[in-house]
Amino acid sequence: MDRGQVVVAGQPLNDLAAGLGHSPFYVYDRAALGARMSELRGWFPQVAIHYAMKANPMPDVVRFLGSLADGVDVASLGELRSALDAGVDPQHISFAGPGKGADELWAAVEAGVLINVESEQELNTVAAVAIEQQAPARVALRVNPDFELKSSGLRMGGGAKPFGVDFEVAPQVLARMAALRSHGLEFEGLHIFAGSQSLNAEHVAEALTASYELAVRLAPHAPAPLKVLNLGGGLGVAYFPGERHLDLAPISSAMAQIVERARTDFPGAEVVLELGRYLVAEAGLFVTRVVDRKQSRGQIFLVTDGGLNHFLAASGNFGQVVRKNYPVTTCAARVDATDSEPQVWQRELEQVTVVGPLCTPLDILADRMWLPKADVGDWVVVFQAGAYGLTASPQQFLSRLHCIEIFK
Amino acid sequence: MDRGQVVVAGQPLNDLAAGLGHSPFYVYDRAALGARMSELRGWFPQVAIHYAMKANPMPDVVRFLGSLADGVDVASLGELRSALDAGVDPQHISFAGPGKGADELWAAVEAGVLINVESEQELNTVAAVAIEQQAPARVALRVNPDFELKSSGLRMGGGAKPFGVDFEVAPQVLARMAALRSHGLEFEGLHIFAGSQSLNAEHVAEALTASYELAVRLAPHAPAPLKVLNLGGGLGVAYFPGERHLDLAPISSAMAQIVERARTDFPGAEVVLELGRYLVAEAGLFVTRVVDRKQSRGQIFLVTDGGLNHFLAASGNFGQVVRKNYPVTTCAARVDATDSEPQVWQRELEQVTVVGPLCTPLDILADRMWLPKADVGDWVVVFQAGAYGLTASPQQFLSRLHCIEIFK
Repeated sequence: MDRGQVVVAGQPLNDLAAGLGHSPFYVYDRAALGARMSELRGWFPQVAIHYAMKANPMPDVVRFLGSLADGVDVASLGELRSALDAGVDPQHISFAGPGKGADELWAAVEAGVLINVESEQELNTVAAVAIEQQAPARVALRVNPDFELKSSGLRMGGGAKPFGVDFEVAPQVLARMAALRSHGLEFEGLHIFAGSQSLNAEHVAEALTASYELAVRLAPHAPAPLKVLNLGGGLGVAYFPGERHLDLAPISSAMAQIVERARTDFPGAEVVLELGRYLVAEAGLFVTRVVDRKQSRGQIFLVTDGGLNHFLAASGNFGQVVRKNYPVTTCAARVDATDSEPQVWQRELEQVTVVGPLCTPLDILADRMWLPKADVGDWVVVFQAGAYGLTASPQQFLSRLHCIEIFK
Repeated sequence: MDRGQVVVAGQPLNDLAAGLGHSPFYVYDRAALGARMSELRGWFPQVAIHYAMKANPMPDVVRFLGSLADGVDVASLGELRSALDAGVDPQHISFAGPGKGADELWAAVEAGVLINVESEQELNTVAAVAIEQQAPARVALRVNPDFELKSSGLRMGGGAKPFGVDFEVAPQVLARMAALRSHGLEFEGLHIFAGSQSLNAEHVAEALTASYELAVRLAPHAPAPLKVLNLGGGLGVAYFPGERHLDLAPISSAMAQIVERARTDFPGAEVVLELGRYLVAEAGLFVTRVVDRKQSRGQIFLVTDGGLNHFLAASGNFGQVVRKNYPVTTCAARVDATDSEPQVWQRELEQVTVVGPLCTPLDILADRMWLPKADVGDWVVVFQAGAYGLTASPQQFLSRLHCIEIFK
């Protein structure tokens, strides 16, 4: 990152913004997405990588990652339609989520995607749909493990959870699946997801191994040999000061062992890592313009045209308990002749609070950060903005400016 | 509240929902809004009551409250357009917010609404617009007080804040306003807002009195006699167990004294209470259908078709530090003959966790609450849902079901 001039997808931010003529915006970097995927291929050579599109459902992103990844996971009928529209092969789409409606299950069976069944009731509905459509329904069982991913930002498994069926009762649900085979249910595998957003590689490796072992214990109850074993992910992204990037080496070793064991335990089965945030977070920037600069009792405020209505998570109001600053910088709208020495420019830091334009004290993008001095018309850039950004924000709040998304 | 059958706007919920044929939905109760307004008129007989429409910008609500209240406060160009479209007289619209864009200020001057100026830069922009349009610009100065509303849920004033100009520098900004009078700036008054969502009536009364006294101290610096003195509000709504409804008596006394003093200090000026949440929160319900009922390790989960994508605040992810349950109940979709004795039905309580359909552990509507036993197809009803509901929620998240709003 050059603080004198932020470069986005190989282009100076000012050129990009001038071409766009609109603020605020998100920009997603195709090259960064591709690089992340290549990196994962290197670390996990024999593992199928799926994209959980809830992290960023922008059509260009889904189309691009859909072409690079081995599959796309959807969490609603809307996402299913988007994925199909983006050209993803239904064979490689899986559908998870605890509250699937009958209409959603109908569409999923019709499209021929894999349904991660989350409850016995859902299993019955899927069977009824398969009978009514006289079509096969591809199903996997989502299992709530009996352990948690330690140091997980979001616990998706372990304890009492609304996701999947408890490991303890999975054998009986698998038996029910077997009984329903004659009605068109095609069992394909298991989905076990212990947690997400962990920055502790050992914990992630342990959870993946433990999830694999649960699958081994459940396999004898399965109605058919596993074709797919989705172990979730859990790979965290570093957002905040003091957090370190996840070391993939221990996870890679664990997955290599899992793949090796699966050759014997589940011959021919695909071992899947399903990643959302980890694939897209670092490939996105949120860019917003400074519309006012003011002081209040010694504190400098930059007021921007983008706020929590466009990027709720960066304001600290989406899942965080204690608000922390996302990585943020500023970028001068004009690089004058006097700014030709970026080293000099870089040193002009000042402590500022960046707030959005909403008339609420919740609307903070950066709380007392040291940033390059900025004025009205300059840019504020929020990094790590590729996941859970615009669609995870209350865009109608205060009926303000529309935010756009571009893919470069 | 009859737990056997929730009644909404005088109609059984099931009848209402059957007529609607869609879930989830919000319903806002016209009679409840009217009653709240009448109650306020009783407590604050000589005070102008304004509606801050950011709390609920649904057009029917704005139209109705616009007709009952003495004014509407808008926080963006979008809200301004909605208010005008709802038939609110521009004379009675005021526009506040820290990051107003030049286009917003242009439209505000053009429409002839009162602009609560939040910074010196904004003042300059308004003056430039007035000159360019050769039209008068109605302005008030928003002042950041030098004290806070104690026990306030959201601090809007005191300390370093992005809202308004600090009390200490207000005299010089008022002098600048005086200098700009010849350019079409028409000074109308002051806006002082110390905080919101307080359930301590004494603190609210103190803050209103202190705000009034700031206005008295600033008045000699004003370019013209005050026509309007907007003291904000601060009136809190009880949401959580243990919270008590705000006692309006001490606030009423304080306002009566303020109005009395204003007769001498600011003859002819209107004293304004600007209320958002307090006007609408209790007049709204959020209603969502149970789509699955499941158990996990001894805990019962009801999975609903509405979730944090429709009501983020109820999930605890909008401004709350520690998640608490909103008031929630369930309602049987069918009242059978055996349910004819609601007393019996009422006693069948069970401890459940209500979760939305999103594939994230953040999506909780009620965490281990004792609720009337409910099954698939029954309703979950969230009370106190009239403010900061749908528009303050990430509606696109996970591309799920659309939520509708009705006004009864």
